[in-house]
Amino acid sequence: MTAGIYASRQSLDVLMVTKTFGGNMAKKVIPIRNYPGFGNVKAGDLIKRMKKQLEKQKIKIEINEVVNIKKSKDLFSVYTTDKKVFEAKSVVVASGSDPRPLEVPGEKKFLGKGVSYCALCDGPLFGGKDIAIIGGGNAAFETALFMGNIAKKIYILEYGPTIKADSENQLLVEKGGKTTIITQAKLEKIEGGRFVNSIAYEDRENRENKNLKVEGVFVEIGYQPTTSFVKGLVDFNENDEIIVDFETYQTKSPGLFAAGDVNIGKFKQIVTACGEGAKAALAAFDYLQRLP
Amino acid sequence: MTAGIYASRQSLDVLMVTKTFGGNMAKKVIPIRNYPGFGNVKAGDLIKRMKKQLEKQKIKIEINEVVNIKKSKDLFSVYTTDKKVFEAKSVVVASGSDPRPLEVPGEKKFLGKGVSYCALCDGPLFGGKDIAIIGGGNAAFETALFMGNIAKKIYILEYGPTIKADSENQLLVEKGGKTTIITQAKLEKIEGGRFVNSIAYEDRENRENKNLKVEGVFVEIGYQPTTSFVKGLVDFNENDEIIVDFETYQTKSPGLFAAGDVNIGKFKQIVTACGEGAKAALAAFDYLQRLP
Repeated sequence: MTAGIYASRQSLDVLMVTKTFGGNMAKKVIPIRNYPGFGNVKAGDLIKRMKKQLEKQKIKIEINEVVNIKKSKDLFSVYTTDKKVFEAKSVVVASGSDPRPLEVPGEKKFLGKGVSYCALCDGPLFGGKDIAIIGGGNAAFETALFMGNIAKKIYILEYGPTIKADSENQLLVEKGGKTTIITQAKLEKIEGGRFVNSIAYEDRENRENKNLKVEGVFVEIGYQPTTSFVKGLVDFNENDEIIVDFETYQTKSPGLFAAGDVNIGKFKQIVTACGEGAKAALAAFDYLQRLP
Repeated sequence: MTAGIYASRQSLDVLMVTKTFGGNMAKKVIPIRNYPGFGNVKAGDLIKRMKKQLEKQKIKIEINEVVNIKKSKDLFSVYTTDKKVFEAKSVVVASGSDPRPLEVPGEKKFLGKGVSYCALCDGPLFGGKDIAIIGGGNAAFETALFMGNIAKKIYILEYGPTIKADSENQLLVEKGGKTTIITQAKLEKIEGGRFVNSIAYEDRENRENKNLKVEGVFVEIGYQPTTSFVKGLVDFNENDEIIVDFETYQTKSPGLFAAGDVNIGKFKQIVTACGEGAKAALAAFDYLQRLP
């Protein structure tokens, strides 16, 4: 959205192709307190404000899904699922990322029957129940904070030996008093009848197999960048994130930029994505000005 | 302010030393329309909101001016004008920069009424109008390129006999076909009624006084980053901007970061400074976590 605001303010002919607005921000379960200008704002409200601001600009918005981007000479062709083709001299990819699955037995079977990637959507179904959150980063701890008002008992299972969430989140979860943190835990499977009733994990330190009786499993182990449609034009790191130059956010293809959660940047915040979107749009403008 | 918000949310012991809040943002006299989340906000209001958000965090704020920073072993000592000394394991410099003023009659009077130091911010107000850009370097020519899509006619006034902008920028401006370049032009005054309607300058070669009918005057004779207090700990480019790594915003001194207008980044916007402040604070936290 920020790239759209900036590109259209440069009086360029701008098309935005997107399935939805807000991306992962839309899935946030607790109010946003770290976006400068808003001490406490619901994700949905911040998205609405940015969308309204965007729609005031001279920009065409196409609600659609991009499946492929090709380049020939100085022109990019952008293909959608319904076989539309849009041509552009420069493209900013800001397609974000999707939650990464665990890939353990039972995960798919119990999706919607105890397994969730979205505490905001599904959390209220687990009132008074015991749940497990898989992952040890900020997303996992923020889910624990949100579920602290809903669930009875919360387990956080982290694969590695240490917790990666920031210390404020760790303190808040500890203060809540409902959460047990288990490190070195390798989730093996999710079990149940019609609904989840337990999980099995290996204690990696002692090589022991253990069980936890839980009715909910919230998966918070990171994200899969939405980058498949741009293969061939960019280089990826081991997490499928797009390699960019950190000053301009240009990829290895001149005229093709990647901002926000899709790229290799290690700080993935709303305000950092906004900053990168602005820079990518200004760099795209600079690129267009210098085309022969 | 964003670095302060982010650092304090990491439960660090944070001190912010500043003379004022908002920096260059505070000097903007027309509403901000390109900060995501606010389609139209007065600079003063956005600053107030960020300040209030900052003050809700666990952070100490010292209204003071830093005159020197020294490092010994892993500790930085921060000296103020009134001879206080603060010690810190990590420092984020986000002291901004000041536009160099012309210092001609009318400049202050018409600030926000035709006179601007920021084409990216204010440019869109001059659609279809004639404007003058004061300065002959890359910033002036990039302003002409940007305004090429917006203004009707553009004058560039350079004081010296030759243009200092790089030849690519000169060619691009020439190609645009809208810009007249006037060298040896000494701006004398900016005139108008409620708004700017003309400028007076001396043709230094022929010793003639001349006038141009313009409704906008963009001052592009450079910025002075506020970096003198950090000499010896960082490297500078030719504009006195601090050289940083663009992923973490760390300077050549481990633990010392520089975000926003003070660094070599070429896109100097409110939202890009916020994004950099967040990244620098998170990188500082990461640095502190890894200290022995």
